[in-house]
Amino acid sequence: MDITLGDILEARERLRPILFPTELVPSTVLSGDGREVCLKTESLQVTGSFKVRGAYIKLASLTCDERAQGVIASSAGNHAQGVALAARMFQTPATIVMPEGAPLAKIAGTRELGANVILSGMTYDDAYHKAREVQAQTGATFVHPFDDAKVIAGQGTIGLEILQDLPDVRAIVAPIGGGGMIAGIALAVKRLKPEIKIIGVEAEGCASMKAAIAAGRPVELESINTIADGIAVRKVGELPYKICAELLDDIVTVDDDEIAQTILLLLERSKIITEGAGACAAAALLYNKIAVSGKIAAVLSGGNIDVTMLSRIIDKGMMKAGRLVTLQTIIEDKPGRLHRLLKVVSQTEANVVSIAHDRTNLEAGLNKAMLQLTLETQDHAHIERIVGIMRDAGYSTI
Amino acid sequence: MDITLGDILEARERLRPILFPTELVPSTVLSGDGREVCLKTESLQVTGSFKVRGAYIKLASLTCDERAQGVIASSAGNHAQGVALAARMFQTPATIVMPEGAPLAKIAGTRELGANVILSGMTYDDAYHKAREVQAQTGATFVHPFDDAKVIAGQGTIGLEILQDLPDVRAIVAPIGGGGMIAGIALAVKRLKPEIKIIGVEAEGCASMKAAIAAGRPVELESINTIADGIAVRKVGELPYKICAELLDDIVTVDDDEIAQTILLLLERSKIITEGAGACAAAALLYNKIAVSGKIAAVLSGGNIDVTMLSRIIDKGMMKAGRLVTLQTIIEDKPGRLHRLLKVVSQTEANVVSIAHDRTNLEAGLNKAMLQLTLETQDHAHIERIVGIMRDAGYSTI
Repeated sequence: MDITLGDILEARERLRPILFPTELVPSTVLSGDGREVCLKTESLQVTGSFKVRGAYIKLASLTCDERAQGVIASSAGNHAQGVALAARMFQTPATIVMPEGAPLAKIAGTRELGANVILSGMTYDDAYHKAREVQAQTGATFVHPFDDAKVIAGQGTIGLEILQDLPDVRAIVAPIGGGGMIAGIALAVKRLKPEIKIIGVEAEGCASMKAAIAAGRPVELESINTIADGIAVRKVGELPYKICAELLDDIVTVDDDEIAQTILLLLERSKIITEGAGACAAAALLYNKIAVSGKIAAVLSGGNIDVTMLSRIIDKGMMKAGRLVTLQTIIEDKPGRLHRLLKVVSQTEANVVSIAHDRTNLEAGLNKAMLQLTLETQDHAHIERIVGIMRDAGYSTI
Repeated sequence: MDITLGDILEARERLRPILFPTELVPSTVLSGDGREVCLKTESLQVTGSFKVRGAYIKLASLTCDERAQGVIASSAGNHAQGVALAARMFQTPATIVMPEGAPLAKIAGTRELGANVILSGMTYDDAYHKAREVQAQTGATFVHPFDDAKVIAGQGTIGLEILQDLPDVRAIVAPIGGGGMIAGIALAVKRLKPEIKIIGVEAEGCASMKAAIAAGRPVELESINTIADGIAVRKVGELPYKICAELLDDIVTVDDDEIAQTILLLLERSKIITEGAGACAAAALLYNKIAVSGKIAAVLSGGNIDVTMLSRIIDKGMMKAGRLVTLQTIIEDKPGRLHRLLKVVSQTEANVVSIAHDRTNLEAGLNKAMLQLTLETQDHAHIERIVGIMRDAGYSTI
């Protein structure tokens, strides 16, 4: 392998004056049963993800002439902002090609950091090809998000920071997209303390490293589908693949429901905002996919979740946990009837969140109205009690 | 005044072994124009608010006999969890009376900390009277949320921590509910560095300290209305009033819209979760209510926002900022017509979030359907462009 421990130690020295090490926060809600979990909060890193580490180390490795030619990258999110910030630090012109469907907040964030943003194509792959095209014309240096020794060395500094803050860590759990971050962490940690377990987490709908290891080489997945857009990579990098095949102890997967519930848990109980990819390592612990006891560090890789997505995750998560329910019932469309129903509901100890009253609904029949009640509830058993109380009072619910 | 600087210094020594000082995080998004703002993140304090400081100092001041009798408090939120945690640390039985409408998550959180929770009445005042009743029967010590010298001394440790981390701070901005926290901060800071400005922030719909200072004594507000439930206090405390009347440099107000937009900004740009009260100090700075330059510390008092409220704030905030819009239009209910409209929309550079297609809508007429499009947009100007493009293509929007 071309990356030495010295490269990662050098990266740490270069990053020291420009980035604070992110905090390693103990998590009571993920700990217990002989396990003590700490969260490496790269979600609170500048630009909201770890990506600036690798991007900065890549730019630091360029000659002055190369920097004057500028850098180019393709990304739908975090790598875009990481490269843009690193380029600003080096006063290097940066061009970032983003797919047209990229969240507007991420496009704006990248532009605010001074990068020239080109929107091209509908997928990351389209943006990648466009970036290669522009690069050929301009002679700028392409900054690959993961398949690059300098980038991997930069991400590896996360591992050094964890070892420093938690010397007796038994396992480090981190998400896998293209594989650059976990490869860097594994290199740093395994060379210093080979007994520490390094466990990767992939989204079930995009397990490209598992597929690569099964096939003996990086393979392109036919279809990918996950809310963890930050790690939705069809084919892992050659270099990360080689490192992971040798050094990872295990790879586990988490599904979208598990990821969404973990985002909600971290938000509500730990006041930490994570994006889908950022929540994967914590999700693997929460859903008991990892059988290691003792001290464990989980890498929260990023916090750049679209706030509209966050709002949907909250609502769906509450529904799934039985803490929010929408019930429909039919009442007679006469004065006093709505009041009577609400009196019944008030006996159920549920909080009314919203009421929609629809007298044009055809299923309700003439002189009747469809009532849609959204209630804040305790759990599924509470919902069943409410449905029972309403049924006993003559209101059947749908 | 009965509280000395020594009391607050003593409180700090008592808290040192049990609570880490919360971080003072520089905020780029609130800084600029000769102002450097740091955020005192009490939202990341254990139990999600500063309340544990005062509660712990109060319990530390009790005799062993008093502690054996237990403590009692009334609260709809943060004080409940602060008292419950402090009581658990002292192995003291705690009873907390909460109003019946209190968020279920806060009730569960208080119970998880081992407190006996009694639900009583609909408002904080009802719960308060019930708590006094139970106290008379049981002989437990009542822990007042703000009108208590020990509690105020405990909250004052926030001021000492800010001075330590930011010695050249020019002003400290903090929310006012009952006034206990800002009174403690003002006592600590003004005795050490009287030139530092202490500025209080109240919710416009509940400016009880402003009213008290105008009247020359605490007065009860007839009606209160704010989303900042943590500071929705009808009448400030006697002791906080005396301290604030003497020591505060100014009190400003923020309205619910300003608070909600600030919650969204802190969430999206700083990855920090605040509740309504917790966002007030930042809101006062964001909306230029405070004319101080140099280094400013804003106290984010708490992060215990109900996640359903957060979800509503995100959606409303996005609508208000022109980043999300719902447009209604009428299309012919024939094959291909929906596709044609979506093609027009795709030219507008907006992302489609959801589509609702209602052919039963009466306003649409026969053979026509009402289409409701929710779009992610850049700003209000972008929305106007979209409406224009749709109009030019024959789709009038409502």
